[in-house]
Amino acid sequence: MTLTGLSAFPITPAAADGRVDETALRRLVEPLCAAGVDSVGLLGSTGTYAYLTRTERRRALDAALDVSGGRVPILVGIGALRTDEAVRLAQDARAAGAAAGLLAPVSYTPLTEDEVFAHVAAVAREGGLPVCLYDNPATTHFRFTPSLVGRLAEVPGIVALKSPAPDTQAAGDYLAAWRGVVPNGFSLGVSGDWNSVEALIAGADAWFCVMAGLFPRTGLRIVRAVRDGNAAEARRLNATLAPLWDLFKAYSSLRVMYASADLLGLCRAEPPRPILPLTGLPRQQVADALRRLDLS
Amino acid sequence: MTLTGLSAFPITPAAADGRVDETALRRLVEPLCAAGVDSVGLLGSTGTYAYLTRTERRRALDAALDVSGGRVPILVGIGALRTDEAVRLAQDARAAGAAAGLLAPVSYTPLTEDEVFAHVAAVAREGGLPVCLYDNPATTHFRFTPSLVGRLAEVPGIVALKSPAPDTQAAGDYLAAWRGVVPNGFSLGVSGDWNSVEALIAGADAWFCVMAGLFPRTGLRIVRAVRDGNAAEARRLNATLAPLWDLFKAYSSLRVMYASADLLGLCRAEPPRPILPLTGLPRQQVADALRRLDLS
Repeated sequence: MTLTGLSAFPITPAAADGRVDETALRRLVEPLCAAGVDSVGLLGSTGTYAYLTRTERRRALDAALDVSGGRVPILVGIGALRTDEAVRLAQDARAAGAAAGLLAPVSYTPLTEDEVFAHVAAVAREGGLPVCLYDNPATTHFRFTPSLVGRLAEVPGIVALKSPAPDTQAAGDYLAAWRGVVPNGFSLGVSGDWNSVEALIAGADAWFCVMAGLFPRTGLRIVRAVRDGNAAEARRLNATLAPLWDLFKAYSSLRVMYASADLLGLCRAEPPRPILPLTGLPRQQVADALRRLDLS
Repeated sequence: MTLTGLSAFPITPAAADGRVDETALRRLVEPLCAAGVDSVGLLGSTGTYAYLTRTERRRALDAALDVSGGRVPILVGIGALRTDEAVRLAQDARAAGAAAGLLAPVSYTPLTEDEVFAHVAAVAREGGLPVCLYDNPATTHFRFTPSLVGRLAEVPGIVALKSPAPDTQAAGDYLAAWRGVVPNGFSLGVSGDWNSVEALIAGADAWFCVMAGLFPRTGLRIVRAVRDGNAAEARRLNATLAPLWDLFKAYSSLRVMYASADLLGLCRAEPPRPILPLTGLPRQQVADALRRLDLS
């Protein structure tokens, strides 16, 4: 698969004991498929993959694949602290029918570049599933360098990079640096919703978008404006979302999306403890933003 | 229990698939008990607790408790990403007979102070095991503040803090800052072998010591010199270990201890992948240091 356009990352509703609420998950994934997102990014960081067992991750994936019914490819988080576990998750995802695996170098002991290279290469080799590198230093505490991505992009089966969009004024240089180290056809996508639109305008292939996990049409309007060469419209739409981006930056997109799903009555959605649901003023701020924004 | 003196942190030998090698672990724990360390710190960060399943962690603990036979209290890592899993690990450890649990706020999504408070308080309340707070920002990416430690020290069952020793010249101020927020009898211990001796001289209650996981007598000589008021002798002994501390700082104490156990023929010891064993020059440097140092 080629990862392009809008990849929508839903939360993964689950009970307090970590059992995935398949019914609620289906209810979240269906509108993404109906809206026509380019892919669903299941079990991303916002999808709390790191907090779910292999069994529950498989159940979530089976449910999403069933809902999609082939309409939309499913990209699924396969990250794990141990290499053998990440390999098993990749094999599970391949057997289930996922289109690609999203692989973050989850760490406890800080990892070296050689360790991450060997880890990712093992998963690509033994997992049999196309791999999207997942650069997310805020959660993994590892930062991919261009040199490492260049080495990994030559490994068969490693097809894409998801990395945090830089500050908006740096988007062009940032993409040029990555383009310089990967082959043609290697997909360069960005995350961090608040900076992503400028990176898309600068030529990023994909937006790995948390907001679109609940509001796919808003994401699609932006991605289509960029695709049509209408940067002004993309920027205008993005600017209307500033209140949401401010909340993401203040409380994390994960906490804000869980609160949003709960406030919108889509599901009983609390993040896995120790992560606490937003309460009090932060929750009120999310409610206010949802009321003010046009996220239809 | 009161955590004081030398707590020796062994590695946890395990097969590539994550199964703990009980025989090898017993061979590592026995000399710690025979040497008379004040406690064994099983399944610390160097003991790769984060990479082992609940079942394997229980097996390791049972083996260590059996070897100790009550001679030395066992402090055991009970950290986990999910609160419910950390509670279960605390309950397991209590049922098995551990003296205390070492609880790091393991994170993927960065945690707030309120989240860590609720997490640790839940484990203390529901686990039924004395808890030593484990402040290790290099692996958890969370830093305990004096204000948070002050709040937690009032929770029944939270009895100690293990935190990274500061640069040697800051040791006095550092301990004074913690002493100011905890009640009398709350144990303040330090880790980070290379800075720990100065913190002990400044009055830290315990040394959570990785080196002593293989070389308990060297650790005991230092701790006893401090206890006898002979700071000069403690500093002299510590200075002889500078080559080891340099390797810890360059390659991490975990990688150096695995290489050491392997080089000394104590067990086939490789860290869990993705962490790679030291090879080539770094391994040679460890071998050279082991030959030169008096670690008997």
